[in-house]
Amino acid sequence: MHYNKQRVNQSSKQAWVDNNLFLNMASVNKDLVKERKSATFDKELLTEILYNGKEGVKRRRYLQNIAIQDPYLKSLTPWWNRDRETHYDIALKKAVYLNQLMEKMNITAPIDMFILREAAACQENNPLGLHQVMFIPTIEKQGTKEQIEKFLPPARAMKYIGTYAQTELGHGTFIRGLETTATYDPKTEEFIINSPTLTSMKYWPGSLGKTSNHVILMAQLHSQGKNHGIHAFVVQIRSLEDHRPLPGITVGDIGNKLGYEGMDNGFLMFNNVRVPRDAMLMRYSRVERDGTYVPPKNAKIAYGSMVFIRAMIVGDMGRSLAQASVIAIRYSAVRRQTEIRPGGEEPQVIDYQTQQEKLFPLLAASYAYIFMGYHMAVEYFRVTAEIERGNMEEMQSLHALAAGLKALSSDLASSGVDRLRVSCGGHGYSLASGLPKIFTNITPAMTYEGENTVMYLQCARYLIKMYAQVASGQQLSGFISYLSNKPRPHSGVNEALKLEDLIELYEHAASRLIQGVAMKMQSLMKSGKPEEVARNMCSVQMVQASKVREVIPWKL
Amino acid sequence: MHYNKQRVNQSSKQAWVDNNLFLNMASVNKDLVKERKSATFDKELLTEILYNGKEGVKRRRYLQNIAIQDPYLKSLTPWWNRDRETHYDIALKKAVYLNQLMEKMNITAPIDMFILREAAACQENNPLGLHQVMFIPTIEKQGTKEQIEKFLPPARAMKYIGTYAQTELGHGTFIRGLETTATYDPKTEEFIINSPTLTSMKYWPGSLGKTSNHVILMAQLHSQGKNHGIHAFVVQIRSLEDHRPLPGITVGDIGNKLGYEGMDNGFLMFNNVRVPRDAMLMRYSRVERDGTYVPPKNAKIAYGSMVFIRAMIVGDMGRSLAQASVIAIRYSAVRRQTEIRPGGEEPQVIDYQTQQEKLFPLLAASYAYIFMGYHMAVEYFRVTAEIERGNMEEMQSLHALAAGLKALSSDLASSGVDRLRVSCGGHGYSLASGLPKIFTNITPAMTYEGENTVMYLQCARYLIKMYAQVASGQQLSGFISYLSNKPRPHSGVNEALKLEDLIELYEHAASRLIQGVAMKMQSLMKSGKPEEVARNMCSVQMVQASKVREVIPWKL
Repeated sequence: MHYNKQRVNQSSKQAWVDNNLFLNMASVNKDLVKERKSATFDKELLTEILYNGKEGVKRRRYLQNIAIQDPYLKSLTPWWNRDRETHYDIALKKAVYLNQLMEKMNITAPIDMFILREAAACQENNPLGLHQVMFIPTIEKQGTKEQIEKFLPPARAMKYIGTYAQTELGHGTFIRGLETTATYDPKTEEFIINSPTLTSMKYWPGSLGKTSNHVILMAQLHSQGKNHGIHAFVVQIRSLEDHRPLPGITVGDIGNKLGYEGMDNGFLMFNNVRVPRDAMLMRYSRVERDGTYVPPKNAKIAYGSMVFIRAMIVGDMGRSLAQASVIAIRYSAVRRQTEIRPGGEEPQVIDYQTQQEKLFPLLAASYAYIFMGYHMAVEYFRVTAEIERGNMEEMQSLHALAAGLKALSSDLASSGVDRLRVSCGGHGYSLASGLPKIFTNITPAMTYEGENTVMYLQCARYLIKMYAQVASGQQLSGFISYLSNKPRPHSGVNEALKLEDLIELYEHAASRLIQGVAMKMQSLMKSGKPEEVARNMCSVQMVQASKVREVIPWKL
Repeated sequence: MHYNKQRVNQSSKQAWVDNNLFLNMASVNKDLVKERKSATFDKELLTEILYNGKEGVKRRRYLQNIAIQDPYLKSLTPWWNRDRETHYDIALKKAVYLNQLMEKMNITAPIDMFILREAAACQENNPLGLHQVMFIPTIEKQGTKEQIEKFLPPARAMKYIGTYAQTELGHGTFIRGLETTATYDPKTEEFIINSPTLTSMKYWPGSLGKTSNHVILMAQLHSQGKNHGIHAFVVQIRSLEDHRPLPGITVGDIGNKLGYEGMDNGFLMFNNVRVPRDAMLMRYSRVERDGTYVPPKNAKIAYGSMVFIRAMIVGDMGRSLAQASVIAIRYSAVRRQTEIRPGGEEPQVIDYQTQQEKLFPLLAASYAYIFMGYHMAVEYFRVTAEIERGNMEEMQSLHALAAGLKALSSDLASSGVDRLRVSCGGHGYSLASGLPKIFTNITPAMTYEGENTVMYLQCARYLIKMYAQVASGQQLSGFISYLSNKPRPHSGVNEALKLEDLIELYEHAASRLIQGVAMKMQSLMKSGKPEEVARNMCSVQMVQASKVREVIPWKL
């Protein structure tokens, strides 16, 4: 063995440099130029439709250019060649740098901050992100005036760096199952935070592994011998002096994942750690000094923001699918493969119908989900306004729609991005293509903010309930009105189908699937099965009825 | 910002240790024990069926124990917590250590070496693997007696460490499209090796980035002003003294990938590098001193081993799917989620039908592909023996079967392993689950050894050709005999279907799809389309006819 690590690395590092120089010399590929010239639509107009008109596009480009031209951001190691330690290191440096930059430039609108972070490739890799979108807002929303005054100034000054610790090793979507306890001790006016089992270990929260010194802790509140359910607590976990875990606390990074290299997802255990009474966020419910529990007036406080986040995922999935589509389509224009005529030139792979069948339906789907995301945002604000006026009518419908679309869009985006990756042959496997990163970045969306199968089932339960109303003669409105529709007769399979016909047929298929599963459910219960058993026996069809997509043979 | 890298790492490393201690304390989960006890079949008998009888299982366990108990192998960093540099480092150390161990223990049978490497988790991460399975065998098979005497002793002594450099940045499955040239210069009796374009850069070969000092180079042979097609050359690329690239050679690692962290896939360019005439492996074809080219007697030399490797992939995919199934099924037995009855115990997720629908069809498929792999090996040796006796009849059929099954098995395994990963919720995303590693390890099989869409099309072209024989009245035999069968009448949709009926219906569907695309092809050509245009227009249906799977609504 003539192996010498240092020498090997020297030679390959030199070669890397040479190689990159070589790549930088390349001009724009002629096939790409040709394809771009042959577009039959107004690209600028489409961009304006996607990004909020002329002004929106102008602002977007201005912000993107700041990130792209920035000498500091340019100087960082390219992300496809980092190890995980470097990933985290750079992610944190970037997050701090961008915070300072935005403060200096007075960039404060959320959309502007989003664009700038996106252009700086800092979306996923932002260890300070949860501090800003979860830690601070939870204190603002659920804290009393005194708590806000106590916690917010050090949080804003980044003296407290926090995250949101909800998920446990053994508990995810079913939040009532969380095991971490906060038991009130009236003698000392403290809560005792404890992790009673291995499965109660907090597991997965981002920014917990290394970054945070505080958490919003979701725990079962016990007082006067009773369990009052899940409540939020502000708990310090690491020293403000030397960042070591405080006594009784075990905390660290959960290790490598399929992606999210820049994020320090962590674990956290408590061994009877005492925190003051005002650690519990008490705007809506509270524990008195003597231990008396005062419940919230409205139990559905967290409900709205959960629906909002799910609705937002729909558009995110569309944008990720769009990114991957752009990469795969550009590759397909540039890559040439296999002569069609013996001895002829190798054609661009985009000219193969098998390649087109991989690319174009997913490109179309990305538009569908991007626009669906905008629609969901509008619906969310409309229905929320209604709810605030006391009209709860559409709350359930919005919840079901957000659950179903969150699942469907993340399902399709995850498998679709992977399909686009594979459509680029070996190069899709290289991190340099960007495709693995998009995949590993979005595939967790199938699990987070509500596991997809649970989401499909929630959507199906709502649809079955609505179908029962149709069966009892009611006319439905809104997005589920198709359940009331009778299909028009069609003259036969050779009829030229218009888009309206296709939608109608799709709705009819969806309606039939719901009808089928509703009838199966009824018949099982008539035959004596308990409801929960009957529902389990119908659950596969319920998921299929939610998606519909899978039962259409020529599927996406 | 109170961020200090060293302190953060210290605290999280300590926590990692505590956490691992905690995990090691856990005993076998009671739910797992219960499920294992309730098996209704003889596990030992099944193991013997899978692994070559009682003796095979005994030998397998003996070898696995060597790897599992070995103190040196035990001492290495766990793979789910390594950065890429460490991955490569450990991969190389392991490969060298295992080579020495096997020599010391006189383990020489390929199956024994395979089991030992697999148990030491060294399959993918073996930077010396291609030296053993591609570099040395190619010299043995394609070298003259003199070349074998020259190259083999230093290769066996690991003085030469080699790999196989075929794929280029712009050229993969279509080998005739390779651009690297080897031009013979009769004045000096040398070949001039050159990379004339960016796309001609060798790209992807394993062990090229850091490990190898030699390659088997596949290049277009030019002599006396003519191109004689692709030939193999033994070319030194790095110094035997200090491992630096030789003059005129640019070589290095291609950077991070979605997986294969322990493998140094590389790139390689030649700037008119001169090598002696005997660099060309000349057993079958040769270039005389004066430049006269003598072609091989049989052009299909490499054909057999390509079919063999594809056939072997089928079983590999089954085994990977089986590994992932075991992990996901165990997880589903242990994980509890969401009370079915309000206030009741949370059931094991394996009791949910939606979870069963994710797990069990893929478990079944893993058995199907494992046994299909054994069948393909038997068929390969049978047909090869026939070919050696001069009977070429079944060569095409075996080629089509291997191409189709390689594509289908890798397609299903890649999406199936990903599905199993997601069925484990968040934990499937953690490298510690083992699932991302299985996924990233097998998903390249959709591309390597023949890109899947190309494989499906090759299979379909053969099926269409065979269908034409049926249409002209011939009776087919072998695996394509179903194309001749007329379906038996079935009495209706409510008939109880036996396994035989399902197979028959599947064959009928497959036959109908081939018929459909054959007729479409014919009609396009009748209407004046050139054959290559007609074929492109039928290609999506050709792929679907190869798989069949996708047009069955309740698909895997």
